[in-house]
Amino acid sequence: MADYKAPLRDIDFVMNKLLGFPAHYAALPGNEELSQEVVSAVLEESAKFSENVLAPMYRVGDIEGCQWDDGNVSTPTGFKEAYQQYVKAGWPSMTHSSEFGGQDLPNSLGIVTCELIGTGNFAWGAYPVLSTGAMNTIKAHGTDEQKSAFLPNLVSGNWTGTMCLTEPHCGTDLGLLRTKAAPNSDGSYSVSGTKIFITGGDHDMADNIVHIVLARIEGAPAGTKGISLFVVPKFNVDAEGNIIDRNAVNCGSIEHKMGIHGSSTCVMNFDSAKGFLIGQENKGLSAMFTFMNEARIVTASQGYCHAELGFQKSLEYTRERLQMRSLSGPKNPTGPADPIIVHPDVRRMLMSQKVFSEGGRMLVYYCAQLVDLTLAAATEEERKNADNLLTFLTPIAKAFITETGFESANMAIQCFGGHGFISEWGVEQNLRDCRISTLYEGTTGIQALDLLGRKVLGSGGKMLQSFTKIIHSYCLEHQDNVAMQEFIKPLVDLNKEWGEITMSVGAKAMENPDEVGGSSVDYLMYSGYVTYAYFWARAAETALKILDTDSADEDFCKSKVAAARFYFQRILPRTRTHVVTMQSGVESLMALNADQFAF
Amino acid sequence: MADYKAPLRDIDFVMNKLLGFPAHYAALPGNEELSQEVVSAVLEESAKFSENVLAPMYRVGDIEGCQWDDGNVSTPTGFKEAYQQYVKAGWPSMTHSSEFGGQDLPNSLGIVTCELIGTGNFAWGAYPVLSTGAMNTIKAHGTDEQKSAFLPNLVSGNWTGTMCLTEPHCGTDLGLLRTKAAPNSDGSYSVSGTKIFITGGDHDMADNIVHIVLARIEGAPAGTKGISLFVVPKFNVDAEGNIIDRNAVNCGSIEHKMGIHGSSTCVMNFDSAKGFLIGQENKGLSAMFTFMNEARIVTASQGYCHAELGFQKSLEYTRERLQMRSLSGPKNPTGPADPIIVHPDVRRMLMSQKVFSEGGRMLVYYCAQLVDLTLAAATEEERKNADNLLTFLTPIAKAFITETGFESANMAIQCFGGHGFISEWGVEQNLRDCRISTLYEGTTGIQALDLLGRKVLGSGGKMLQSFTKIIHSYCLEHQDNVAMQEFIKPLVDLNKEWGEITMSVGAKAMENPDEVGGSSVDYLMYSGYVTYAYFWARAAETALKILDTDSADEDFCKSKVAAARFYFQRILPRTRTHVVTMQSGVESLMALNADQFAF
Repeated sequence: MADYKAPLRDIDFVMNKLLGFPAHYAALPGNEELSQEVVSAVLEESAKFSENVLAPMYRVGDIEGCQWDDGNVSTPTGFKEAYQQYVKAGWPSMTHSSEFGGQDLPNSLGIVTCELIGTGNFAWGAYPVLSTGAMNTIKAHGTDEQKSAFLPNLVSGNWTGTMCLTEPHCGTDLGLLRTKAAPNSDGSYSVSGTKIFITGGDHDMADNIVHIVLARIEGAPAGTKGISLFVVPKFNVDAEGNIIDRNAVNCGSIEHKMGIHGSSTCVMNFDSAKGFLIGQENKGLSAMFTFMNEARIVTASQGYCHAELGFQKSLEYTRERLQMRSLSGPKNPTGPADPIIVHPDVRRMLMSQKVFSEGGRMLVYYCAQLVDLTLAAATEEERKNADNLLTFLTPIAKAFITETGFESANMAIQCFGGHGFISEWGVEQNLRDCRISTLYEGTTGIQALDLLGRKVLGSGGKMLQSFTKIIHSYCLEHQDNVAMQEFIKPLVDLNKEWGEITMSVGAKAMENPDEVGGSSVDYLMYSGYVTYAYFWARAAETALKILDTDSADEDFCKSKVAAARFYFQRILPRTRTHVVTMQSGVESLMALNADQFAF
Repeated sequence: MADYKAPLRDIDFVMNKLLGFPAHYAALPGNEELSQEVVSAVLEESAKFSENVLAPMYRVGDIEGCQWDDGNVSTPTGFKEAYQQYVKAGWPSMTHSSEFGGQDLPNSLGIVTCELIGTGNFAWGAYPVLSTGAMNTIKAHGTDEQKSAFLPNLVSGNWTGTMCLTEPHCGTDLGLLRTKAAPNSDGSYSVSGTKIFITGGDHDMADNIVHIVLARIEGAPAGTKGISLFVVPKFNVDAEGNIIDRNAVNCGSIEHKMGIHGSSTCVMNFDSAKGFLIGQENKGLSAMFTFMNEARIVTASQGYCHAELGFQKSLEYTRERLQMRSLSGPKNPTGPADPIIVHPDVRRMLMSQKVFSEGGRMLVYYCAQLVDLTLAAATEEERKNADNLLTFLTPIAKAFITETGFESANMAIQCFGGHGFISEWGVEQNLRDCRISTLYEGTTGIQALDLLGRKVLGSGGKMLQSFTKIIHSYCLEHQDNVAMQEFIKPLVDLNKEWGEITMSVGAKAMENPDEVGGSSVDYLMYSGYVTYAYFWARAAETALKILDTDSADEDFCKSKVAAARFYFQRILPRTRTHVVTMQSGVESLMALNADQFAF
């Protein structure tokens, strides 16, 4: 069984046929010259690296995991060497500014390569992803001195970065954080406290680790208004980024986790560690969250990475495993039994995995284009529109793709029957690794509150309209396309219903704010199904258009239309349940006091 | 955090208030004298054993797992000693015949204690459960000599048993099995072949292991009609059950699995091992499946065991974890934040776990009563009715309870946020352990085919009616109960719809047999939701009745009614989706050929 095959053909379809990336790049300031050939070459190289270097380490990373020894973390066999190859090939610098040694390629291309890395070896991929967060933060909010000292080595990949937010008693509620920063006479700060769940907090893959740390300056206000942001390196460096000596940052232990064993999840102790303020005092939270949309889109992509990996593995298994006969007569009459892919229920699971994986790809790449525009659109209006739309879609993408990714990964196990429970097939690892994605970077519940409370209701419905208008225009455009009626008609209805339900939920929330929390996850999932319906309609339309003119891609395009049909007939009816439950009121949730749940 | 608290109060409610176990036992031939006090005492002792002995070994069993060394399997620290205590206390013999040293207690009581064991330590519980299968098989189909040789030591628990069905190339499709049995001159057989996924195939907890093995006698017909059943002990024994010498049965290796690490899952090699035919030649499959309903009800109970354990852990955590404020104003104003149980979405997850756990308990105990009746009803008609109803409910119970158990276990992780992914809290282990339950003893897909194809459509709808009639009578009985209207009205509608959908699906299946497989899992899940609705209505009715007369149980009973209301308002609408998808036709599933799923 192949470990992983990068789905370059589907990536090409989504980027070049469906979402018009060539035109997008041609209009993107700074990347007007980026040709489709260069993009393809980048993706092919990334695919090779993922298939040949990362995917073969998938299981060993799980079995060996990371090891902690007296403060030093070692990564599984091969991880370090793979990282060296990755650095040598220039991958870390791809989307960063040439000012710091980067290649100035668009962020969207980085997001696509994240998919390939994340599907090939999710645990390994956690190290470079976190570095990006640190780089972006320093670049956006750091002083020129901080940029010179830290960015060149981070951009080259010689160093990696982390984001240190969570503490034992606070995750979602960062206002409670206790890590302290005391000013030193030289303008630096002494940072003291304990951070947990720090991905890549320590490891053996790079020369230095640059921590971006949230802490409270002595005397700062309580709550979120007294939080500042600091850069605290593992090794202190001079102005040119030369390593001087060890800083008082130590990995106290690593967590034993359900999955992603190859990714070190560290307890980090800061013991009067030397740090430097990034951005303004007490404005650390907003600085930390500058690139939250982008970070969450990358996390969103992890959802369909796991759907894709599970899909590939279960497709191969169900095509080969012989067991029972088809109810409609033998399909492999000369063999001892039929391959289990003949059974409709096995197909239900495979098709579900397919539409969740490919659906996630469409939504994430769409958001990736918006990320490009928020950073470099030609006009401020375009930038603002992109930012609005991205802000609206981010919680949907993050939560819906990871939830359906988990469901898909779980279906892959089911396709294997009892063998799915056995480690050597890899599908149970895929589920275990996948499980983190609905938890970190804001749980599904937090994303749902963000969507419904802060964004949709908080904007008086305007943010929702920014997307429903796009769907509305699309439906109008295709209202006379006979072949598209099976998709356009339900999409029109859902798009209308989406607005109506929002009004209904909003009205309840005016009377009782708890109604927001009571309906938010159902609302988010509903929104996700409608969003995917829009993209699956576009996929069908694109495929039908190609079929009209070009027979070379016939099988591929027909399968797209079939998948869209499956999505509309078999997945989209899930909205029927969410419509009822999200409007059923919060009373049944709030009836019990905390002591009455169990006796 | 307590490891586990046996929910004796809810067990009492379900057994004694809701399902009338005292009357059931009083009318059960052989157990007429069994008092409620004795039952309570048995359950209290079982609860103590589970809470104090089994639950504390929960994590060590996961961390250490079983170890294989040159054919010998050792179990985790404490497992053997716990088993010795279990044997000494007489638990293995509880429900078995006094003829072989048993205590003649009803099987239903064994099923209830299975819940307590399975929730306290699921992996440990796998050893005694499998023994029961072996005992029942020998008792039902063995010769008197086989019974004398094997049953006393199995009943006492000095020995354990296994069921050896699966081979590397066949699980569901046992007709393909290759293990051979060659007749010896002394009437025994030489059994040769490899079995996989053998729970408790080897371990260090008992003096002998008695394998019940499916094999094909030389020259027997191919397929399921040539399969015979054998008893093959690890150590050969004489007629009185004294151990003579080692048999040629060896554990070749143990599997590395997603969960239940403390349960040994063995590859068993039979190398001309001495075995004895049980029952008739070539009738092995039907002999093996004699107690399938009962075995599957025990597996069904594992689903709500995991729901219960996850519920207990997440309830405790969400009552203690302080994070953010309630949207409707602080609920813990003097603390730094509110406990997260104030948030409606956290409550949605807790209430879901509660209704799935307590719902599973009601259905399983109901089935347990039917098991008693199939074994010992006063009249043949009563026995037959019970058997019919049990046969119908078994696939629903097995698949629906384990699927919703998995969902519940997953929600428990979500309640913990990022901490849910960390092993020390135990909820991720609960999910990993849980995952096997929808796979073994027939996957959810197999149960669904069994329900819709073989039972419902196979009986021309009669088997369905045997249950819908019960619901119908119940609704009639309570149609004038004003307080029950919120439950009775939707139940009446659903019960009617259940029959109509069955007709609609059946009509499609007449034209295309694949329609059965295409709608079966949706049909099963729909059936499960309606079945739970019936039991939740009964729970509400029972609680309301108690509230009318007795204020001592007020909080408990009010929480039951609230849970029923939550179930009807928030869970039951899931039927709306299944109604649509199961009637959407099989075309969208069958459109692609096996090569067109991915490119």
